[in-house]
Amino acid sequence: MIIDTGYSTSYFKDLIESFNEHIDFVKFGWGTCLVSPNIDKKIEILKLFNIDYFFGGTLFEYFYSKNQLNEFVNYCNIKNCKYIEVSNGTIDLSNTEKASIVSDLKNEFNVFSEVGYKDNLRSTRFDAEQWINYIKQDIDAGATKVIIETRESGKGGICNTDGSIKEDVFEKILASDIDLDKIIFEAPTKFLQQYFINNTHTNVNLGNIDFNDIISLETLRHGLRSDTFFK
Amino acid sequence: MIIDTGYSTSYFKDLIESFNEHIDFVKFGWGTCLVSPNIDKKIEILKLFNIDYFFGGTLFEYFYSKNQLNEFVNYCNIKNCKYIEVSNGTIDLSNTEKASIVSDLKNEFNVFSEVGYKDNLRSTRFDAEQWINYIKQDIDAGATKVIIETRESGKGGICNTDGSIKEDVFEKILASDIDLDKIIFEAPTKFLQQYFINNTHTNVNLGNIDFNDIISLETLRHGLRSDTFFK
Amino acid sequence: MIIDTGYSTSYFKDLIESFNEHIDFVKFGWGTCLVSPNIDKKIEILKLFNIDYFFGGTLFEYFYSKNQLNEFVNYCNIKNCKYIEVSNGTIDLSNTEKASIVSDLKNEFNVFSEVGYKDNLRSTRFDAEQWINYIKQDIDAGATKVIIETRESGKGGICNTDGSIKEDVFEKILASDIDLDKIIFEAPTKFLQQYFINNTHTNVNLGNIDFNDIISLETLRHGLRSDTFFK
Repeated sequence: MIIDTGYSTSYFKDLIESFNEHIDFVKFGWGTCLVSPNIDKKIEILKLFNIDYFFGGTLFEYFYSKNQLNEFVNYCNIKNCKYIEVSNGTIDLSNTEKASIVSDLKNEFNVFSEVGYKDNLRSTRFDAEQWINYIKQDIDAGATKVIIETRESGKGGICNTDGSIKEDVFEKILASDIDLDKIIFEAPTKFLQQYFINNTHTNVNLGNIDFNDIISLETLRHGLRSDTFFK
Repeated sequence: MIIDTGYSTSYFKDLIESFNEHIDFVKFGWGTCLVSPNIDKKIEILKLFNIDYFFGGTLFEYFYSKNQLNEFVNYCNIKNCKYIEVSNGTIDLSNTEKASIVSDLKNEFNVFSEVGYKDNLRSTRFDAEQWINYIKQDIDAGATKVIIETRESGKGGICNTDGSIKEDVFEKILASDIDLDKIIFEAPTKFLQQYFINNTHTNVNLGNIDFNDIISLETLRHGLRSDTFFK
Repeated sequence: MIIDTGYSTSYFKDLIESFNEHIDFVKFGWGTCLVSPNIDKKIEILKLFNIDYFFGGTLFEYFYSKNQLNEFVNYCNIKNCKYIEVSNGTIDLSNTEKASIVSDLKNEFNVFSEVGYKDNLRSTRFDAEQWINYIKQDIDAGATKVIIETRESGKGGICNTDGSIKEDVFEKILASDIDLDKIIFEAPTKFLQQYFINNTHTNVNLGNIDFNDIISLETLRHGLRSDTFFK
């Protein structure tokens, strides 16, 4: 899952034409779609290549915090989205309530839910058991996949502010009975990409991949870069 | 104010075509124009979209330090510049002398002056009162806007070497009687962008914005990203 | 020497068209060529502009570690390479053995060898005398140039993990009787670029330059940026 942080039109087209075989999903990061004059052109390009797309969880939170959940759903329908992301990384929304929204939306969309907080203090207090419970609650509610938050910087959510992993949380998730195929780890840095590959398997679901890192990630998956050479 | 650090021609055109509505000025960073084979093509593209442009202050300092102020003015005229930047971030030039150059050039150009040093030791010794006096001296001399130095890295001038803000300086500038509309804060990092937006207002003048961050900055101004969500 | 980390086709063409006069070599970084659907198109573009290219040393190590040195040579021939890189940054291969491979390959290719380890612990134990001996051994074996490892991050090989230079090693290499013209320093960061320029000369051979830094590096070579202004 690649993240678009606001690329220009021809460059976006060039990336999709060059690398579509390595791309499963494009996420238009956070609320970028609302201020991107070229969002419709980008969606057209993705349709041409049959690549699915969705908007960042912050867009959901933006509408939800203004009591405009219907407007959010309408917007996603107007943009022909088949996928939708629901999160509570920024706003105050309980996981139970989030899971209930997942459950409602799953009739109309494939729903990606996200677990993890952007704020560092909230993340620190969020222990492995809660991570696991919330992931399971979202899966049970009907989420297609659950995204593990690390932020666009790789320094929030399941990561510490220095970019390293909260290893106890990560290891307990792995040791749990959660199906790894249901998880997408946000991995915007090479450190995180090699970490998840080395500690799970080469085809692990990774998200928030920068468009400029598509080939680099592919080399990591194939052991063609020093960091995963001996995997 | 977007900074061009040396982009290729078609990509530059693509960015301007895609995002011109979000751009007020393009600065061709430091002395890049002199070694950019495509500088004239880029200027043509900006003329097409009626976007003003100027060359980084280091170009002024380069000519000035060789006693070639006239050659600098000629160069800017040949390139059809309506705006010009005057700074003393690198060379030894007193603010009084700089302000006098601002005063001379303002008859022919709109002059952006810059306050702040690139060198860390000089920056450390430069206190809030001096910042305020120099900003005022430049405004009084006729500067259209005064640019607050942070370097292209966001780690010099009004920033500490770790990228954080010299908060005492910043707060005293805000508390002074300087018109904030006369100021452009260099804000090359997301940290600085959200800091200036959260601590002044959503339309604060920001500079040294990377071409790849145009949409991201726009989301920060609209509260569409976690960092300014509650502003 | 510019590094391609996996750019899309049109952008690659745009960069080469815009900046070919500043480029001597393009290195397709580590094993990217094997997973780049557009590698042949890129090579065609370089052929048009008479720019030489080669594949990163990790590609050699990948084939070598599988006992497929012949397949590596065949692959480079199929891709019309005139240059080839031989390294031991990741795998366990003595410098004597590496030099003997350099010696074999030099009949068919111009050979760039690399000295330095990617792993931090191995780098720490690798002292100045060994650096100098290995560089000389490779030159004596017939290497066209010897590349000094810093990794794509500027944080390995002759660099410490914080991105600073191992200054004792660097200074002893300079003080030795090694011809500086035979050396290419990997310099992927502005810090390293200004360091090598300020501490050797403005035309020093630099490698692993990001495509987006071509113009910036050229300004550093010409004293058009603060970091080398007084050189």
